[in-house]
Amino acid sequence: MKITKAVITAAGKDQRSLPLQRLVDRDGEPKSAVQIIIEEAVAAGAENIVLVIAPGDEDAFRRAVSAQAQRIQFIPQLASRGYGHALWCARQFVGNEPFLHLVSDHLYVSNLPKRCAQQLVEIASADNCAVSAVQATRENMLPYYGTVGGRRVTQHKNLYEIENVLEKPTPTEAEQHLIVPGLRAGHYLCFFGMHVLTPTVLEILGESTGGTGNIQLSPALAKLASRERYLALEVAGSRYNIGVKYGLLTAQLALALHGADRDEVLTQLVELLAKQKHA
Amino acid sequence: MKITKAVITAAGKDQRSLPLQRLVDRDGEPKSAVQIIIEEAVAAGAENIVLVIAPGDEDAFRRAVSAQAQRIQFIPQLASRGYGHALWCARQFVGNEPFLHLVSDHLYVSNLPKRCAQQLVEIASADNCAVSAVQATRENMLPYYGTVGGRRVTQHKNLYEIENVLEKPTPTEAEQHLIVPGLRAGHYLCFFGMHVLTPTVLEILGESTGGTGNIQLSPALAKLASRERYLALEVAGSRYNIGVKYGLLTAQLALALHGADRDEVLTQLVELLAKQKHA
Repeated sequence: MKITKAVITAAGKDQRSLPLQRLVDRDGEPKSAVQIIIEEAVAAGAENIVLVIAPGDEDAFRRAVSAQAQRIQFIPQLASRGYGHALWCARQFVGNEPFLHLVSDHLYVSNLPKRCAQQLVEIASADNCAVSAVQATRENMLPYYGTVGGRRVTQHKNLYEIENVLEKPTPTEAEQHLIVPGLRAGHYLCFFGMHVLTPTVLEILGESTGGTGNIQLSPALAKLASRERYLALEVAGSRYNIGVKYGLLTAQLALALHGADRDEVLTQLVELLAKQKHA
Repeated sequence: MKITKAVITAAGKDQRSLPLQRLVDRDGEPKSAVQIIIEEAVAAGAENIVLVIAPGDEDAFRRAVSAQAQRIQFIPQLASRGYGHALWCARQFVGNEPFLHLVSDHLYVSNLPKRCAQQLVEIASADNCAVSAVQATRENMLPYYGTVGGRRVTQHKNLYEIENVLEKPTPTEAEQHLIVPGLRAGHYLCFFGMHVLTPTVLEILGESTGGTGNIQLSPALAKLASRERYLALEVAGSRYNIGVKYGLLTAQLALALHGADRDEVLTQLVELLAKQKHA
């Protein structure tokens, strides 16, 4: 299957200003975080991109993404009903096609020349099904992530058939439902912040939109696993959550140390360490 | 004299989003850049603060400074006529009192328990005149700063009587007009981004507002030096320009390495350096 659409969610209450933060990308160009995320999607083949945003944020986001303006639409999430609901707001844009979905509070550094989203889209295109990017993650980080359980696809080192999805599982829940044979002890497959999804997910999300409560994505993905083939890919790269304390600092350092300005930034870093005295 | 008012300029075309960038302060608290700047002013005794902003930015700034909302007023700069004009927009707020002025694209790390603005305000209060904070700066950085010439005040190691002010002088101009006896060779006294100014500066700025052109601050400060006693203080601390490439990264690292989370951030830094391979 061919993936030409991307949906980026940026409407979360605590996240509205995150995608607008200024960083310098691996190529040494100053950009907003959302611009870096959009370029991740474009590099993976996305031709049309929707940003789901909080009402009132369109002007600020439009300024932040001006370089890619021609391929971007904005959809306001009119009710604050959670992450799954935000994604569901893009259902008309998605229509009947598979789509790439990226969150807006993570940045990525790939270990390969191919960017992380591109690795993901290539597997989804080849296997013709939904695929979530995951990373083997230590048990102590479970409170931060959606986590999948399943079994390794034969002959594939980094590909798993998803059987279960739980949002921020407790260690006990994880041990009972999400152990993946072959992973290092105490490690689980946690979401990486990017997915190729099928329209089935939006159907499933639509089944819960009747009330007024929050709608999360992980339960819908658990249902997806029972209805369709749904894979997890261990991406060759690292994710950086810019929403946590010092998250922007760590992401910026990771981008710089893997990028064009590596030597310049290392020099600055050493100068700063040499200059400063513990106050 | 007593300084209870502060004016922060944040209306510059390329600077509008800078004060809204998210950082973690020395105390380990996540804050916007403008919030950190406001706290610098408050720690120096400012009770009432004006932010001069671009029209349309008030909502975003109001959200960014909510913790100090009760002491803050916003004044839009209705015409894009430069830095001096932005400051002049605060003339009614300033009235007939001296005031602290801070730019919004610099953050500070003091070498003393007293913050940089507090060092400055104490000197201005004691000497009863306008005082600009400066830093001895290498010649190659002249293209970035307003620069003062003058002579050291007898008995004061870090205090200078200002005789001349030039904005971004060439090395030749600096050599002819701005040499300060006693400074290291090839070094000049460049602005630090904070000043205590008298209402005379606003009068001087007002004399140039008749046309439609840009109004810079440095020529007005040069005139101030000819009308009143006007000092420069070498502050014990460092300035970090967040408007340059990697400026936010460097400022964040400096704050963290001099702050409550020093060990945590150093550990993260070492982990990142250990983990990463040159891609």
